Amino acid sequence: MPIKSRIRTIPDYPEKGIMFRDITTLLQDAQGFRKTVDELVQLHVRSKVDKVAGIEARGFILGGAVAHQLSVGFVPVRKKGKLPYDTLAESYDLEYGTDTLEIHTDAIVEGESILLVDDLIATGGTAEAAIKLIRRAGGEVIGCTFVVELPELGGRERLEAMGCEVLALCSFEGL
Amino acid sequence: MPIKSRIRTIPDYPEKGIMFRDITTLLQDAQGFRKTVDELVQLHVRSKVDKVAGIEARGFILGGAVAHQLSVGFVPVRKKGKLPYDTLAESYDLEYGTDTLEIHTDAIVEGESILLVDDLIATGGTAEAAIKLIRRAGGEVIGCTFVVELPELGGRERLEAMGCEVLALCSFEGL
Repeated sequence: MPIKSRIRTIPDYPEKGIMFRDITTLLQDAQGFRKTVDELVQLHVRSKVDKVAGIEARGFILGGAVAHQLSVGFVPVRKKGKLPYDTLAESYDLEYGTDTLEIHTDAIVEGESILLVDDLIATGGTAEAAIKLIRRAGGEVIGCTFVVELPELGGRERLEAMGCEVLALCSFEGL
Repeated sequence: MPIKSRIRTIPDYPEKGIMFRDITTLLQDAQGFRKTVDELVQLHVRSKVDKVAGIEARGFILGGAVAHQLSVGFVPVRKKGKLPYDTLAESYDLEYGTDTLEIHTDAIVEGESILLVDDLIATGGTAEAAIKLIRRAGGEVIGCTFVVELPELGGRERLEAMGCEVLALCSFEGL
């Protein structure tokens, strides 16, 4: 059962011309979810991982499961205004306007090895902001792992230029 | 290591008079996160669970890990406008105004046993809306499981009145 076969494509969502890759059909499938998390874990089982960071919100589902399986802590990287304690913030560009991600100032101990997990990498803008936050908080990003990659949008090159290893379980051509 | 001891209390957040129970300190602690997920799983390891449903966003972190550990699928119950396919919606009251949760119409197969997971139960309004959605989608809620309960706010009684079993790992007095 290839993981890619359980991902649903929704044409023209959220706007005309976009092929939205919907992983909910993968997550709700027992075999599909099990396999997805196990493959994400397998990629890093020999690395030193101190914590997993997941990007709100779909990265929480996968990151929580990966952190538990690796027996490490989980750090949420959240949208602005959602974390209750002192935070660091990074803004990033969207097609129209900007958005902001935050991390707790005490989420990471200086020098910890952090694995970043999210569902999908497109342009890499969100992941770039998350990497900057993790580094500012004192962490070393030892890998960025995604279920889906959209290679035409250049996210991999963007994160590699920051010195990060990028791994994805499957890829889709087109936007 | 009691789970409760790893939860941080932030006074006057998000507004004066509220004692906010911050589970990020528990989640980022390897031992704390492991123990939390294992205890949530242990409560249901003898039950027939077909899928875990998690409520956005903190319920995704815990629900994803619990679903993976039980080897079942995960269903996200999301804020309005976040799910890309056809949805069912339920609104619920907040202190000021209302909010809406959604579930995909095809997330659950008729008759499936669903375990609902979230981080905290206060008045139970959010969980009530999630239970209604799961039932409308064809699922049977076999349990509602939380890390933290605020017993003075009556959430347990509200969900029990709907015929749901409520379990929580720890409780805090006061709001």
